[in-house]
Amino acid sequence: MSYKLGELADRVGGQVIGDRECVIDGVGSLEHARPGQITFYNNKRFRKHLTSTRASAVLLAPSDAEASPTNAVTVADPYLAYARIATLLTARPAHPGGIHPRACVSADSRIDSSAWVDALAVVEAGARIGPRVTVGPGCSVGIGASIGEDSVLVANVTICHGVVIGKRAMIHPGAVIGADGFGLANDGGTWVRVPQLGTVLVGDDVDVGANTTIDRGTIEDTVIEDGVKLDNLIQIGHNVRIGAHTAIAGCVGIAGSSFIGKHCMLAGGVGVAGHLEIADNVYVTGMSMVTKSINEPGIYSAGVPLEPNQRWHKNFARFKQLDEMARRLKELEKRLYNGHK
Amino acid sequence: MSYKLGELADRVGGQVIGDRECVIDGVGSLEHARPGQITFYNNKRFRKHLTSTRASAVLLAPSDAEASPTNAVTVADPYLAYARIATLLTARPAHPGGIHPRACVSADSRIDSSAWVDALAVVEAGARIGPRVTVGPGCSVGIGASIGEDSVLVANVTICHGVVIGKRAMIHPGAVIGADGFGLANDGGTWVRVPQLGTVLVGDDVDVGANTTIDRGTIEDTVIEDGVKLDNLIQIGHNVRIGAHTAIAGCVGIAGSSFIGKHCMLAGGVGVAGHLEIADNVYVTGMSMVTKSINEPGIYSAGVPLEPNQRWHKNFARFKQLDEMARRLKELEKRLYNGHK
Amino acid sequence: MSYKLGELADRVGGQVIGDRECVIDGVGSLEHARPGQITFYNNKRFRKHLTSTRASAVLLAPSDAEASPTNAVTVADPYLAYARIATLLTARPAHPGGIHPRACVSADSRIDSSAWVDALAVVEAGARIGPRVTVGPGCSVGIGASIGEDSVLVANVTICHGVVIGKRAMIHPGAVIGADGFGLANDGGTWVRVPQLGTVLVGDDVDVGANTTIDRGTIEDTVIEDGVKLDNLIQIGHNVRIGAHTAIAGCVGIAGSSFIGKHCMLAGGVGVAGHLEIADNVYVTGMSMVTKSINEPGIYSAGVPLEPNQRWHKNFARFKQLDEMARRLKELEKRLYNGHK
Repeated sequence: MSYKLGELADRVGGQVIGDRECVIDGVGSLEHARPGQITFYNNKRFRKHLTSTRASAVLLAPSDAEASPTNAVTVADPYLAYARIATLLTARPAHPGGIHPRACVSADSRIDSSAWVDALAVVEAGARIGPRVTVGPGCSVGIGASIGEDSVLVANVTICHGVVIGKRAMIHPGAVIGADGFGLANDGGTWVRVPQLGTVLVGDDVDVGANTTIDRGTIEDTVIEDGVKLDNLIQIGHNVRIGAHTAIAGCVGIAGSSFIGKHCMLAGGVGVAGHLEIADNVYVTGMSMVTKSINEPGIYSAGVPLEPNQRWHKNFARFKQLDEMARRLKELEKRLYNGHK
Repeated sequence: MSYKLGELADRVGGQVIGDRECVIDGVGSLEHARPGQITFYNNKRFRKHLTSTRASAVLLAPSDAEASPTNAVTVADPYLAYARIATLLTARPAHPGGIHPRACVSADSRIDSSAWVDALAVVEAGARIGPRVTVGPGCSVGIGASIGEDSVLVANVTICHGVVIGKRAMIHPGAVIGADGFGLANDGGTWVRVPQLGTVLVGDDVDVGANTTIDRGTIEDTVIEDGVKLDNLIQIGHNVRIGAHTAIAGCVGIAGSSFIGKHCMLAGGVGVAGHLEIADNVYVTGMSMVTKSINEPGIYSAGVPLEPNQRWHKNFARFKQLDEMARRLKELEKRLYNGHK
Repeated sequence: MSYKLGELADRVGGQVIGDRECVIDGVGSLEHARPGQITFYNNKRFRKHLTSTRASAVLLAPSDAEASPTNAVTVADPYLAYARIATLLTARPAHPGGIHPRACVSADSRIDSSAWVDALAVVEAGARIGPRVTVGPGCSVGIGASIGEDSVLVANVTICHGVVIGKRAMIHPGAVIGADGFGLANDGGTWVRVPQLGTVLVGDDVDVGANTTIDRGTIEDTVIEDGVKLDNLIQIGHNVRIGAHTAIAGCVGIAGSSFIGKHCMLAGGVGVAGHLEIADNVYVTGMSMVTKSINEPGIYSAGVPLEPNQRWHKNFARFKQLDEMARRLKELEKRLYNGHK
C-alpha cells in the first residue's frame, strides 16, 4: 500500500513542510529507514539519527521541524501520528472467512460466515464467533463462550467456557481467559476447592498479552473494561475489575477481588494484594508491592536501589536494625536537646 | 440440582434456624443472590449486604445468626460449608467417556474406557489415562506419562514424557509439567546442557494453575505431594519438593533443589532461592525474597512500603547510606555517652 | 548405551584411578546411583554421600580423589564432565523424519525430509523447517518463520510469523516467540496500538524455557544472540537484545529496548526497566530491580531481608522515615561536633 505524503499528513492532522506529492510506501526507524519510508522523531536522544536519516519524510513536533533533513510533517504527538500511519501502511487484506477443514467446530456453535477458524482450533458447543473474528491455530473456545466482532485470537489461546470477549480484542498466543480462580477453603489442614461459578467479561478494544492469565470469578464475574491493555505473563485473580483504558505491563500480578481504576498504569512486575481498591489515574512504578488501597491519583513507588553486591550486603544487614536505629536516634536527641529543641 | 435446606445443613453439620423445607437450587453472593439461592456471611465488611440479602438462606457463624434476615444455617466455618454446598449444587454429570474422533491417540497408550479424550488432544505411546480422567482439547500427554483417576487436564496442557499425575488432579490450561530443568554447566564461557533425567511425581488432589510450569528433576525427581494447590504462573524448578497441603499463590518462583514443608503458604510473587529448606507451617507474605532456609514455623515478610513517588525517591536514596548512617549514629553515641550509657 | 570407563574418561580429558575396563551404562546421583552407573562429586555438603556411594565410578577433582570409595575419574570440572558423559549415555536415536498424518502442513512451506513434524502441529505457508528439526505436538510455526537445523520445539510452542530460530535450539512447551510487543500510543486517554513490524532473530544453541515469551520488535528486530539460555516464565520485551552466552533464570522480566551484554547472568525474578544497557559479564542477584544502566562488570544486588513478620513490620514502617532520620542525624552531628569533628 502506498500514499502521497499530503494524504498521510491530512489523516493525522499534520502540516507538510516539503513535498506533499512524495510517495510513501512504508515506515522505518530514524536510523534505518530507506527512501520511500516515513519515520518519526520525538526524543532528543536520537537527534543524531534525525540529521542523517534517509527516510523520505519525518513526523515531528513543530519546534523540531527545522532539524529535519527531508520532508517534515509537523504534528502535536509524532508517536501517535506514527502509530496511525504505520497501521494504515501495513494493513493486510481481511481473510475471506471460513472454517479450515482441519479445525474442529461443534455443530452447536454459531460462527459468523465472515469469521475465520484456522487449522486445529476447537470451537465447542454453544460458542459464538462474531463477524470477521480470527480464531488462530490451536486455539480453544469453550462451551458457551463468545467472541465479539473483529477480534483476533492469534494462536494456542484458551478461552474457557462462558467467557465473553468484546469487539476488536487482540488475544496473543498462550493467553488463558477464564480458568478457575484460586479459591480454597481449609478443612482441618487440607484444602477444599470452592467452585468458581462466575465468568470473565472482557470489554471492547482490549489486548491480552502472550501467556497472560485471567481467572473467572467465584460467584460474580471478573471484569476487564473497554480499552484495557495487558502485556505478557500477567496474572489477574478472580473477581478483579480493571477499569477502562488502564495499561498493565508484563509480569504484574493482581490478587483476587481487587479493583483497579480507569486510566491507570502498572509498570512491569508490580504486585497488587487482594481486596484493594486503586483510584483512577494511578501510576505504580516497576516491581512495587501494593498492600493498601490507593485513594488519590498520582505516582507511587516502592523498592530499594541496585548496588554493587558488597555494598548492598552492608545496607541489607542494617535494614534489620532500622527500628532499633530510630530508637537510638530518638534517645540521643532526648539527651542532647534535653527535651527542648 | 435442588435440595431442601435441612438436607444441605445436615451435609455440613449445620443447624437450621428457620424453614428446613425451603428448596435451594443454587448459590449466590450476599449482595446479588436471588430467592432460591443460599449464600454465606463471614466478614463484617459485608454486614450491610447481609441485612438486605434476598437469598433464601445464609450460612453463618452462630454468633451472627440473629442478624440474618432469612433462613439461617449456623456452622463453625461458613466459607467451608459454602464450598461444600456449592460443589454439591453445581455438580455436573460425568462425561460418559470415549475418545473424540479428532483426538490423536497412540495405539500403544492405555486409556481407561471411562476416560474422555477431547478433540485435538494427543496421547503418546506408553501413556496411561486412568478411569474417569478428562484430557481436554489441545492437551498433550507425553510418552510414558500417567494420569490418575478422576483427574482433569482442562485444555492446552502439556504433560511431558514420564510424568506421573495422581488422582483427582485439576490441571488448568497452559500448564507445563515436566519440561527440562534449567541445568547448565559452563565450559569456558559457553553453556553445556545437563541432561534432565528425572521426572515429576505429582500426588493426589493437586491443583496446578494456568500457565504454571513444573520442571523435571535432574537425576532424581521433582515431587509435588498430596493436596498441594498451585495458582497461575508459578515456576517450580528442578528437584524441588513441595510438602503436602501447601498452597502457593500466583507468580511465585521456586528455584531448583529447594524443599518446601507441609501446610505452608507462599503468597503471590514470593521468590525462593535454590537449595533451601523451608519448615512445615511457614507462611511467607507477598513478594518476599527467601534467600535462607527457614527452620521455624511462623509468618515471614520482606519488602518496603509503597509511597508517593517523590517521598519514595528520598528514602530510596537514603537506603544506600544506611550502613554509613549506622556508623555515624554509633559514633555520636560514643561521644555523647562517653562509653557509659 | 554403555561405555568402558576409560573411554568415558578420555572423552572428558579425565584420569582414571581404578579400573578403566569397568562398564558404565548410566548416570545416577551420589546418594542413589546403582552399580554400573557413574556419578559426580563437587560439593562438600555431599561428602557423606560420596563415602557411601554405590556408583561404579565418580567424577571428581584431583584433590578429592582419595575420598572416592570406588573407581575415580579426576577432572578439573566434575559437573561439566558429568554433563558431557550424561549426554553421551542417554542419547536417543534420532527420529527418522517425516510428517505425522495428523499434522497440518502448508503446501507452501519447506520442510526438510529429515525433519519430524508431529501430530496436530501446524506449519504455515512460507515457513522453513531445517534438517533434523523436531516440531512437537500442538506446535504452531507461523507464516514465513524459519527453524534452523537440529532444533527442537517440544510441544505446544508458538513461533509467530517471520521469526527466525537458529541451529540446535531447544524451545520448551508453551513458549511464545514473536508475539506483538506492548507498543501503545495515547490518544487523549485511550490507547492506540503501534504496529509491531520487526521480528525476533534467535541465534544458534539457544534454549527457551516453558511458557517464556519473547516479543517481536517494533520497527527493527528483537535479538537473542548465540548460546543464550532462558529459563521458564521469562518475559522479553520488544527491541531487546540479549548478548551471547547470557543465562537468565525463571520469572525475569526485561522491558522493551534494553540491551543485555554477553556472558551475563540474571537470577530469578530480576526485573530490568526499559531502554537500559547492561555491560558484559554482569551478574544480578535474585529479584533485584534494575532501573539504571550498568556499565561495569560485577555482581549487583537489591532487596531487603526476610524477617519474622512482627519485626519486619517495625522496620517496614521506619523505612518511610529514612530520609527524616538522616536529617535528624545530621542535625545532631552539627550540634555535637559544633561544626568540627
